[in-house]
Amino acid sequence: MNKINVGVLGCGFWGRNHARVLSELGSCNLIAVADINTKKARAIGEKYNVKWYTDASKLIENKNIELISICTPTITHAKLSLEAIKAGKHILVEKPMTNTVKEAEEVIRSANRQNVKVMVGFIERFNPAVRKAIEIIKNGEIGNIVIASSRRVSRWPERIGDVGVIKDLAIHDIDLICHLFGDDVKQVYAVAGSLAHRFEDYANIILRFRNGRSAFIEANWLTPRKIRRLTLTGTEGILQVEYITQEVTVENQKMAYSPFFKKEEPLKLELEYFINAILNDETPKPSGEDGLKALKICEAALKSAKTHNPENL
Amino acid sequence: MNKINVGVLGCGFWGRNHARVLSELGSCNLIAVADINTKKARAIGEKYNVKWYTDASKLIENKNIELISICTPTITHAKLSLEAIKAGKHILVEKPMTNTVKEAEEVIRSANRQNVKVMVGFIERFNPAVRKAIEIIKNGEIGNIVIASSRRVSRWPERIGDVGVIKDLAIHDIDLICHLFGDDVKQVYAVAGSLAHRFEDYANIILRFRNGRSAFIEANWLTPRKIRRLTLTGTEGILQVEYITQEVTVENQKMAYSPFFKKEEPLKLELEYFINAILNDETPKPSGEDGLKALKICEAALKSAKTHNPENL
Amino acid sequence: MNKINVGVLGCGFWGRNHARVLSELGSCNLIAVADINTKKARAIGEKYNVKWYTDASKLIENKNIELISICTPTITHAKLSLEAIKAGKHILVEKPMTNTVKEAEEVIRSANRQNVKVMVGFIERFNPAVRKAIEIIKNGEIGNIVIASSRRVSRWPERIGDVGVIKDLAIHDIDLICHLFGDDVKQVYAVAGSLAHRFEDYANIILRFRNGRSAFIEANWLTPRKIRRLTLTGTEGILQVEYITQEVTVENQKMAYSPFFKKEEPLKLELEYFINAILNDETPKPSGEDGLKALKICEAALKSAKTHNPENL
Amino acid sequence: MNKINVGVLGCGFWGRNHARVLSELGSCNLIAVADINTKKARAIGEKYNVKWYTDASKLIENKNIELISICTPTITHAKLSLEAIKAGKHILVEKPMTNTVKEAEEVIRSANRQNVKVMVGFIERFNPAVRKAIEIIKNGEIGNIVIASSRRVSRWPERIGDVGVIKDLAIHDIDLICHLFGDDVKQVYAVAGSLAHRFEDYANIILRFRNGRSAFIEANWLTPRKIRRLTLTGTEGILQVEYITQEVTVENQKMAYSPFFKKEEPLKLELEYFINAILNDETPKPSGEDGLKALKICEAALKSAKTHNPENL
Repeated sequence: MNKINVGVLGCGFWGRNHARVLSELGSCNLIAVADINTKKARAIGEKYNVKWYTDASKLIENKNIELISICTPTITHAKLSLEAIKAGKHILVEKPMTNTVKEAEEVIRSANRQNVKVMVGFIERFNPAVRKAIEIIKNGEIGNIVIASSRRVSRWPERIGDVGVIKDLAIHDIDLICHLFGDDVKQVYAVAGSLAHRFEDYANIILRFRNGRSAFIEANWLTPRKIRRLTLTGTEGILQVEYITQEVTVENQKMAYSPFFKKEEPLKLELEYFINAILNDETPKPSGEDGLKALKICEAALKSAKTHNPENL
Repeated sequence: MNKINVGVLGCGFWGRNHARVLSELGSCNLIAVADINTKKARAIGEKYNVKWYTDASKLIENKNIELISICTPTITHAKLSLEAIKAGKHILVEKPMTNTVKEAEEVIRSANRQNVKVMVGFIERFNPAVRKAIEIIKNGEIGNIVIASSRRVSRWPERIGDVGVIKDLAIHDIDLICHLFGDDVKQVYAVAGSLAHRFEDYANIILRFRNGRSAFIEANWLTPRKIRRLTLTGTEGILQVEYITQEVTVENQKMAYSPFFKKEEPLKLELEYFINAILNDETPKPSGEDGLKALKICEAALKSAKTHNPENL
Repeated sequence: MNKINVGVLGCGFWGRNHARVLSELGSCNLIAVADINTKKARAIGEKYNVKWYTDASKLIENKNIELISICTPTITHAKLSLEAIKAGKHILVEKPMTNTVKEAEEVIRSANRQNVKVMVGFIERFNPAVRKAIEIIKNGEIGNIVIASSRRVSRWPERIGDVGVIKDLAIHDIDLICHLFGDDVKQVYAVAGSLAHRFEDYANIILRFRNGRSAFIEANWLTPRKIRRLTLTGTEGILQVEYITQEVTVENQKMAYSPFFKKEEPLKLELEYFINAILNDETPKPSGEDGLKALKICEAALKSAKTHNPENL
Repeated sequence: MNKINVGVLGCGFWGRNHARVLSELGSCNLIAVADINTKKARAIGEKYNVKWYTDASKLIENKNIELISICTPTITHAKLSLEAIKAGKHILVEKPMTNTVKEAEEVIRSANRQNVKVMVGFIERFNPAVRKAIEIIKNGEIGNIVIASSRRVSRWPERIGDVGVIKDLAIHDIDLICHLFGDDVKQVYAVAGSLAHRFEDYANIILRFRNGRSAFIEANWLTPRKIRRLTLTGTEGILQVEYITQEVTVENQKMAYSPFFKKEEPLKLELEYFINAILNDETPKPSGEDGLKALKICEAALKSAKTHNPENL
């Protein structure tokens, strides 16, 4: 079987995870890693017995590499994505896709021109609990969804430096709810503030969708215990997803139940999927357009929080 | 000891509860009940061996009665309150205090003129779990509260006929959060809709307070299992109140804990408190002004949900 | 409709509950109550507007009474039961049926001679959660039951004076598991001890049944939070009953689920059932024989705990 | 720093885990692995870039190796341990230490003669939740422990071939409770049976300790969802350990609380500890004697289950 050669940019928390998973997948070869921090780059390079660079451009220039996973800080995403695309590489870019809507648009245009594949790391779409939830919803077990409500909270993470909770945490739920609803947001209203971080560290966001549904998203870095929970209220029941423990609970008129299913590492499923999309020349999802859409909603939320007015999209 | 003579208007679900509790309190005598439905009025009257009327005015005219508990449908609250006040009775009026802000203002003015006491049945203030939560907050155990988030959901109750979930359910959390924050709301934004009821049966509301705090309230009649939960996020920890089971959980950096305390019926504590306030000639809280404040916020939420614009107060 | 006239002996915690429920049932008339404590007897008598005695014999002699509910301390059960039976009354006797096996045998013989009905207050059989569990088991949802395991623990209750945890708490599970298994115990092994009470205040009991099943029962008065839980392990799944919250959870290979069903007061269902059995001249269950069987197992457990040998029945 | 050279016998589920952890520890070098299954041995050998053998004796003969981790099936433990000890290696042997008491005694004698260190893989002793529990108990937070009760249940694992649930699962709790109580068992009574496995697949065991405490252990392979739970009832409160999620809950008269602490892989802590004991020439615990003690209790339980009599130790 053909194997895709992959390089990873960034050897921080997520870069290390990407490297580990890529080194274990049967459908790809981890070829190289890069980080501006020599110690980090070397540690990962030696651990997986692959090339390591302290200069991202060197990795991008490596002719053997077909796919680059971009796990660097957000503000570098656009520049590195464009450089990688120009070099003809497919890219998996961690969320948020870029720091601004404008940058995301440029990346998409460039990828289209170069005919390379772009996927955005909205990893929750690959969470087995989310997949099970989608299956249950399609079976009509909770009727029509009316409201989505999510809670994604934890304590001040130090690894986050260049974005706030909206682009770091809430963006997961924004993307996922758009995906679940199969619909576009028409209005965003948000409250946000910063208690102990440079960027906003708590946010409450309401999304109104075109078809009348709405969503409420609560995200913060103030909460001692990590919670990642999505609650969908439907006309016939409610469904709750615990992202971390990968549990789904459904409550209808007759009972509450939690189906048992195989727990798997979402990152593994995500990377496997993208590599297969490349091997089969298919268009991967979540696409650059999905990344852009989520970013637009994040920017609208940030603006609404500032102006105290809803933002229409 | 002096005992207060009490009458109950309305023998529906809440009226029956009021009658039962009043019949058992040592500080009052249940004197009479009334309901336009003869069967209901007679059943309760006979059960507690008290007078029963099918005409509210007859109960109000009863010279022996000093306090009237108004448990009739919302649209009748203003009329009956005014009549009772005019007859010189103290009144406990179930929430929402009246159907409109205008009516509430009239009741307050009238009570002030007649010098009778008015209390609004925001029963959650008397929930032992809420009292314990307030004690914990005052001890500084979760630092400064930043966000309050509440979820009050259950399945289509049939006894609600003349108001939607905002005035029926969300109003509890609106009053309680105002009370906890000791602050006033300056902006309200809401999404609401009606799936199976005459009035709105789901609502998501964001409140901005003057001092910068915010609250999110989710209320609906769509959810199979009854949930009544308040989550307060503070700078040092979070606190969660389960109203139904009367449990408080605190999570700080070191641990999660649930103090044990005596569970008691909130209605009993509420009625006992009001009767004592009358006996000691003290001003009871939640007052008519509290009832009015909550109603203003409800009306702003209803307007915001309709116009898709935030309402400033 | 014919109504049964009922008297209650004992106005302690359970006697008051019996009186309250009997006063509300449509199929009986509460006629009288008795307690050696004048204050207690009078309080209940006046509350329900019925005769009250401080001498049990007077109540038993009351010609109007057809059914007597015996809620006095255990050591008085045999004497009062025999007296009531002699007077031709049907009896509901709280668990344990009597203090000793010998006494229970005498009560049964006497009731048979006098042709009156005897029921023992194994209230858990009337718990809606138990009834739902039996329905689920009959549907084969957990296959064949292999092991029953119960945990009935709480903190030193002061109202218990004349028996230990085996006859006070464990007896509920002993009766219920015999009933669920439809089988007899052939061997009992127990560990028990007394830390702070006159009688044993903790006990761990293993029961071997004739057909090969086994049960483990843990009971104590040492545990801060009250737990009343039964876990049944079957060949195809497990089923858990929470007696207090009346919840049933089933786990099979595919899912965990909790059916929703109506919560009701077990005591109400129990008394209603017995009164109907009298009205329809049917044999009530749990019978005196069930009470005797449970008592034999309790005595075997007490003996095993003392001798450190298993007891064969 | 000196590093210990380690070899792993057995490349099944646990052998792979040992290899992975040893390859990541800073205080040792993974040198070689062995498995009679060529494919398994090669896969692990290549993954960690170490020697691999299909003949255990070859690994044992390897002069560079100082410590051997024995992760093969139980029936081979004694033979391989003796061979490794004879070759002068320290050994970590997975539980149960050997298949029989007699074998364990022989291994201990041999290790004493050869002056090598033996540790038994009672991994739960290294579970951070157990360590936290011990700290809490030492602080007196639940008073004196009276009863230990454990539940270790899951679904038919296929990797277990040569022992039943008593030696495979219950042995963990047997060792841990002996350790926590700091006491010896004087009597064992057990019920066990086999529904779908060659060896017993469910067991309920009661242990009486010399100082009067007792323990109840429930273990089976019949239960869909994996539970690993220990409940300690003390005179002042109860403490519950969830082994899998590494959570500790304490309930006393005032509150229920769960301290937060760092979750770590018990295997990593275990291996790190043993390697340090070798480096510092200290006697590791759980020792061979601990392994033997647990095995004696297991054998007593198996005998009791067969004879229906308690076994005295």
